[in-house]
Amino acid sequence: MGEDFKQLLFLPLGGSGEIGMNLNLYSYDNQWIMVDCGISFADDYLPGIDLIMPNVDFIDNIRDDLHCLILTHAHEDHIGAVVHLWPRFKCPIYASQFTAIILRHKLREAGLLDEVTIHEVDLSGSFKIGDFDIEFVTLTHSIPEPNALNIKTPLGTIFHTGDWKLDPDPLVGAATDEKRLKEIGDEGVLAIVCDSTNVFHEKPSGSEADVRKSLQELLKDKPGAIFCTTFSSNVARVETLAHVAEATERHLCLIGKSMKRNVAAARECGYLKDFPPILDEEDASHIPRNKVLYVCTGCQGEARAALMRVIQDNNKHIHIAKGDTVVFSSKIIPGNDLTIARTYDLLIEKSAEIITERDAFVHVSGHPGQEELKQMYDWIRPEIVVPTHGERKHLLKQAEFARDVGIEKTIVPRNGTVVKLAPDNIGIINEVPVGRIALDGDMLIEVDDMAIVERRRVLFNGALVVHVVMDKSGSLLKPIDITCIGLPEKSYGELKKYIDDKVHDALELAAKKNITDNDALSEVVRTAARKAAKYYTGKETGPVTNVHLSRI
Amino acid sequence: MGEDFKQLLFLPLGGSGEIGMNLNLYSYDNQWIMVDCGISFADDYLPGIDLIMPNVDFIDNIRDDLHCLILTHAHEDHIGAVVHLWPRFKCPIYASQFTAIILRHKLREAGLLDEVTIHEVDLSGSFKIGDFDIEFVTLTHSIPEPNALNIKTPLGTIFHTGDWKLDPDPLVGAATDEKRLKEIGDEGVLAIVCDSTNVFHEKPSGSEADVRKSLQELLKDKPGAIFCTTFSSNVARVETLAHVAEATERHLCLIGKSMKRNVAAARECGYLKDFPPILDEEDASHIPRNKVLYVCTGCQGEARAALMRVIQDNNKHIHIAKGDTVVFSSKIIPGNDLTIARTYDLLIEKSAEIITERDAFVHVSGHPGQEELKQMYDWIRPEIVVPTHGERKHLLKQAEFARDVGIEKTIVPRNGTVVKLAPDNIGIINEVPVGRIALDGDMLIEVDDMAIVERRRVLFNGALVVHVVMDKSGSLLKPIDITCIGLPEKSYGELKKYIDDKVHDALELAAKKNITDNDALSEVVRTAARKAAKYYTGKETGPVTNVHLSRI
Repeated sequence: MGEDFKQLLFLPLGGSGEIGMNLNLYSYDNQWIMVDCGISFADDYLPGIDLIMPNVDFIDNIRDDLHCLILTHAHEDHIGAVVHLWPRFKCPIYASQFTAIILRHKLREAGLLDEVTIHEVDLSGSFKIGDFDIEFVTLTHSIPEPNALNIKTPLGTIFHTGDWKLDPDPLVGAATDEKRLKEIGDEGVLAIVCDSTNVFHEKPSGSEADVRKSLQELLKDKPGAIFCTTFSSNVARVETLAHVAEATERHLCLIGKSMKRNVAAARECGYLKDFPPILDEEDASHIPRNKVLYVCTGCQGEARAALMRVIQDNNKHIHIAKGDTVVFSSKIIPGNDLTIARTYDLLIEKSAEIITERDAFVHVSGHPGQEELKQMYDWIRPEIVVPTHGERKHLLKQAEFARDVGIEKTIVPRNGTVVKLAPDNIGIINEVPVGRIALDGDMLIEVDDMAIVERRRVLFNGALVVHVVMDKSGSLLKPIDITCIGLPEKSYGELKKYIDDKVHDALELAAKKNITDNDALSEVVRTAARKAAKYYTGKETGPVTNVHLSRI
Repeated sequence: MGEDFKQLLFLPLGGSGEIGMNLNLYSYDNQWIMVDCGISFADDYLPGIDLIMPNVDFIDNIRDDLHCLILTHAHEDHIGAVVHLWPRFKCPIYASQFTAIILRHKLREAGLLDEVTIHEVDLSGSFKIGDFDIEFVTLTHSIPEPNALNIKTPLGTIFHTGDWKLDPDPLVGAATDEKRLKEIGDEGVLAIVCDSTNVFHEKPSGSEADVRKSLQELLKDKPGAIFCTTFSSNVARVETLAHVAEATERHLCLIGKSMKRNVAAARECGYLKDFPPILDEEDASHIPRNKVLYVCTGCQGEARAALMRVIQDNNKHIHIAKGDTVVFSSKIIPGNDLTIARTYDLLIEKSAEIITERDAFVHVSGHPGQEELKQMYDWIRPEIVVPTHGERKHLLKQAEFARDVGIEKTIVPRNGTVVKLAPDNIGIINEVPVGRIALDGDMLIEVDDMAIVERRRVLFNGALVVHVVMDKSGSLLKPIDITCIGLPEKSYGELKKYIDDKVHDALELAAKKNITDNDALSEVVRTAARKAAKYYTGKETGPVTNVHLSRI
């Protein structure tokens, strides 16, 4: 292919149309690189499923040309799918130290550590992959080492932001390197591919330092123990809380494995240098309640997280008592409202005081509002704005905002759209099949797998399995066996009897009509049983019904 | 029993600890009356269940002494359980005209209309039941005819507010009768039993008239069709929207059966007198889009409501096009966030503009904020405040608020607590069994019925039914039959083969051990099948497993 036919492409497979499961591909001259490989949490549309991730069938087509996976930072929606999907493409991975440490822990648990090549990239470091020159540009976010990628290609430079905000005083890690961002702008940027999460917020998200001040003031005179819950990956917040503990003359105690693991990883990378001593859980239980500040996971009301275990008295050493204060130092993620509200209810029963982001300034977001987006555009001066990392409405809004502030060219991708960034006639030029796959136990299945469809049906309508044993002439050799699953129990006896009667009636009628074929008889039984159950229970739809007919 | 032993009791069976399913009992000298009998909507903890309501087993004990059920107003959380529970207590019902019309419609659908005696009570009317003198006091709320009850007994007066707010200009129905409320205060009130829903709001909820002004301004220059969605029972809002249609020179069209039914009921009661002509759906489809304002159900993103049917092109005449405006003139009820967000997404795909209470002033609440509570206390001057109609946190907050404004005696009930209001030593004196029951199809079951437990288990883990046919000596007469429900389909073949192998192994071992008892053999098969499925799928818990063993 001549130089003239070379194209620079952007193809998101996840994250452009949802907040979560980010997976982006870039291509130049048939060389491909992947940026991030994340998961998302399933909602109640996918019963029995916790995690979903992008369908990567498309990658089978380019596997030999996929040079690497680059991870911008260690959040689950950017690295969580690696352990599940990496075996499909087996390319080397590039990440900064903190991300690499978190990833290695996951790979070890999945038994993949020895198979994966991880290249650690220094902060502000750069490397070359084929015709791509890639530079890590550290921004600020709610985790250590959030890296934007400055990707130079012969057809122009792409600035891929990853997750970011502008925090003049981030407490963990350096503030945004304004000088380098301006230089990148001076060097010329073709396109910015940019975080859209908070585009509906006009104001900046605020600084971690302000949260620290607010929490110190808020918690200085609390009578009992203080529990602060946040995401364990938010190391800056954990440090904030450690400082609040010191300022309020309390000892710090971390609860929850992932909390301890993230703090350890951060220390390994040289962060949290003036962190106070950490009490272990048993020691903390021996000192006066008003002298301890606990930091724990569980800010979304997760059933198995540390906070819920403490609330439900499943922690051997730590419990919550009247007069304690529980601070939810985090966002309430849409969809988690009910679970979180149930956690509040349990705390109210224990007469603990609850403080959330709705009551006081106890949290700042890790994503850019409009003022921050404008600032970034001004530094980078991209020709094209490509919004990503958001639902459709967020992406459309960032495009509108970009046009409002004077950037004429915007392209709003969807998962699966092939966006041509250069040369000329830029825009969406093609679409590849995409979708979502679900982790069910340790199996990856399509989200429309019959297993999920059936579960949803059983959920609403119950299930019925009917077993008929007859001889060659069609006479029953045993009573008809009926198994009811998820049908009202106290009427089981009568319900079964009712179904049994109707199946007998149907078999009699079938005998009169000389229906003897096994399949036809099974269908007669299935229809009769299903109709009987439907009628008896008054459900709009009958149960999922299976019949097995044995001839002896 | 002598006069000295007579007691005045309050006993909530529903609504004191949740927003929804209100059901309250009052008792004086062993005479009982019930106030309201409502339902609540089930959340995802009760798979396959839409409606829940209070367990009324307690009423079996007092059935002969239960004189009547009084309905304060026609909202589902106050009257929705009547058709399900009335057969349990069969007492006469008292309600004002609008409530009676809505109730009769429900009773007719349930085939109960001829059995139930309904006494229509005039607004401001009163009646005597045993030693109770009861007066209807019309307040304002988001439905016509919201009645507080002034209940006089020989031991003192109870003012039961029902749902209320203070709206100086409610548009439908009269404003609050301040004079009568002050008189009631002058006559002396022992206890107010009072709505707690909005106690966390310091400011008053605002007036319907202000919503009208705001909507007129907001919608005056919209280019396409306008769709406004709200609860169909909010007749005042529907009238507001009718006026907005007139003011913006648009024709009014109602979509959805319940919307039309509520408007008809309101008109039968003499409301909506200057309502504009209503276009039917087909006619509306023939006039220019920018000349129509549609009012429809579906403000919570309900799958089967009018709005969703229009969005999904399931309405024969009406569709949504680019440039249309959709106003959600309602509250976002906690727990419905995700469903509503999905509705927004579908509208964004259609390039419609969305306006919600988060964007503009398009809704006022029907419940009292702190200023309104204070005003009511000042009028009524109760000795005791008993907060009801709220989650535990709302009740506790209203009690705190009442004490803050100088009312010393507060009693915070729970569902099932017997509250003694008079004479002396007031407070919680007893507790009766309560709980929730669920409507499953047309059967009422306990919320911990095995049917629901099983559904939840199948939801996460799938189900397995194994059928073994053997002769008396234990030899298999047919291949083992395995039915998998909700297990990953694409591996069905292999999964079944794997389970089949393990069951054969287990049966062989059992034969060697001389296990021949049917029950013991079934358990051997069950354990082997469940373990095999668990191992194969990698799920933490195995599927719900049933075994049937037939001996021929």
